[in-house]
Amino acid sequence: MTVSKFYPAFATDFDRLLRRLAGRKVAVIGHARPDGDCIGSQVGLARVLASAGHDVTCVNADAVPRRLEFLVPGMKFLRTDDVLADPTDYAAIFVDCADQARVGERLKVRFPRPLANLDHHISNTHFAELNLVDAGSAATCEILTGLALDRGLALDAPAAQALYTGIVTDTGQFRFASTSRRTFLLAAELMAAGANPPQVGLELYERESMAKLELLQRYLSSLRMECGGRVCIGILPAGVFEATGSSAEDTEGLVDYARSVEGVDVGVLIKERTDGSVKASLRAKDATYRLDLIAAQFNGGGHASAAGLSLTSGTEDFYARLVAALAKQITLVDAAGKAAP
Amino acid sequence: MTVSKFYPAFATDFDRLLRRLAGRKVAVIGHARPDGDCIGSQVGLARVLASAGHDVTCVNADAVPRRLEFLVPGMKFLRTDDVLADPTDYAAIFVDCADQARVGERLKVRFPRPLANLDHHISNTHFAELNLVDAGSAATCEILTGLALDRGLALDAPAAQALYTGIVTDTGQFRFASTSRRTFLLAAELMAAGANPPQVGLELYERESMAKLELLQRYLSSLRMECGGRVCIGILPAGVFEATGSSAEDTEGLVDYARSVEGVDVGVLIKERTDGSVKASLRAKDATYRLDLIAAQFNGGGHASAAGLSLTSGTEDFYARLVAALAKQITLVDAAGKAAP
Repeated sequence: MTVSKFYPAFATDFDRLLRRLAGRKVAVIGHARPDGDCIGSQVGLARVLASAGHDVTCVNADAVPRRLEFLVPGMKFLRTDDVLADPTDYAAIFVDCADQARVGERLKVRFPRPLANLDHHISNTHFAELNLVDAGSAATCEILTGLALDRGLALDAPAAQALYTGIVTDTGQFRFASTSRRTFLLAAELMAAGANPPQVGLELYERESMAKLELLQRYLSSLRMECGGRVCIGILPAGVFEATGSSAEDTEGLVDYARSVEGVDVGVLIKERTDGSVKASLRAKDATYRLDLIAAQFNGGGHASAAGLSLTSGTEDFYARLVAALAKQITLVDAAGKAAP
Repeated sequence: MTVSKFYPAFATDFDRLLRRLAGRKVAVIGHARPDGDCIGSQVGLARVLASAGHDVTCVNADAVPRRLEFLVPGMKFLRTDDVLADPTDYAAIFVDCADQARVGERLKVRFPRPLANLDHHISNTHFAELNLVDAGSAATCEILTGLALDRGLALDAPAAQALYTGIVTDTGQFRFASTSRRTFLLAAELMAAGANPPQVGLELYERESMAKLELLQRYLSSLRMECGGRVCIGILPAGVFEATGSSAEDTEGLVDYARSVEGVDVGVLIKERTDGSVKASLRAKDATYRLDLIAAQFNGGGHASAAGLSLTSGTEDFYARLVAALAKQITLVDAAGKAAP
């Protein structure tokens, strides 16, 4: 089969990037609280570069989440303290980071001049020397897969599995609007390279803890409708992790239940903490709701249909202010007539 | 892009099939209690044949399920009584039917000599004149997509959407072991032809009722571990549908939560009824547990990793007998050493 290139516009910069790595140790750095696309990108890129003869290290401020550990057997993942104590002049490649600070403040200081920035967030600030950013891609893993295939670089089975996992998680199993024909073509090539969809499904979705199911149960029981049934909000009160034996990691995916209700356009998960701070995750069925703009009103950010925020002060009337902001946005969207299904 | 054929082995028979349709009215018949792959196949094939100039009617013993209605706007779906009263000598094409009786006894009698049988079930009995059966395909919709593309037949957007939906539902969103590189390549082509993954996701998975979420919450709160954590069982007591405003249809997918727990091999949903009867759904992570054999001990049946049963009498000690049967089976599987992940 002959295919045209997946990312022809990046060919020159990717070549330049590979040339700049010659003779240097490489650090592939992902964002704090890493998700599937972050770890998938780190593992995928690190293995592709290692196969091409480079000495590569993955760096992350936080540990690889338990349910993604199947992607990193036998791989070095350094933490912040490890690289702060290490004087190596790494060629720093940031993956899946919309801005430099997403790696964490201390890693940002440790790697002040990133060589490259490979990402798919629309809000990316192009903070590196070489910025291979495509907001039209469903995942950073999609970009990395395309670049590797375009360049004819070797993808071993663990790299293919990692890149496939990032695509699965960032597309919600090929469901989000970001899913394109290219996404499927690349998934096909990743299977040919050794990606194993049933294993990925098992690891991601069939290793739940009873504690997580209890957290889900509590979240479901807290759901309330706002904005005339267009917004569904669930709250996890302070102390719920201790009470259920679950952890913050177990909240992943909960907000999708709020969004999944018929008639609901935006689902919200609010996490309250004992110190009075709050976090919120927002998910829309349609990108026209521009949740990134809603989150920005509370110093948060993200994508148009998936955003988040974290507030440490001024949280007293947060719920009311969030509902007001969503109500205003829904009015705007309705007026623009864009939200019709 | 040039691609080799997807189903070269079927080229001759598919040509023969198309020639045999000349000048005849065509009935595309699916199985009773139709699922996504059945309706997707019926809609997809009917539209492809209609685009090629044929007069095509879809026939099904049961109504198109509510959540699949988005696939059939403006299309004729005849029911059993409609075609029993209709003397037309249809060319009958059965889709997604492992055997002729799957369409329902009365439709089987109405269409005694099927012209064609297009299916992917391994148990298919090759009951038609032309049998295009491939158990290596993830869905009947996968076969139909490949055949249409191989032959260069026009796929309009609703046909592409229907075929895509069948692939999504029969692969559990590209997760089951049946998912192949071809599955992804065909999904890519269906997107190019107008399939819309976010809309499919929305229709299939984002139109939940609050009543269903309450049913889920109650099911989760009932989960208990058996067989040393290898079996997880949840019970919906009599009266739960009335109490939550949900219906029997809303139990779909609940048992997957029990199976999804780490360490659990078999998930179970037990529905109790006020008349003392019980129904149970069994789901395994691995086909080695042969749940069809477990269900058969209670006059039920199904597949190796997905089975069900319904008991109207002798239900007093059902829970204990089911757990005993599962414990025995787990011991057998462990002894055979087949269940290692």
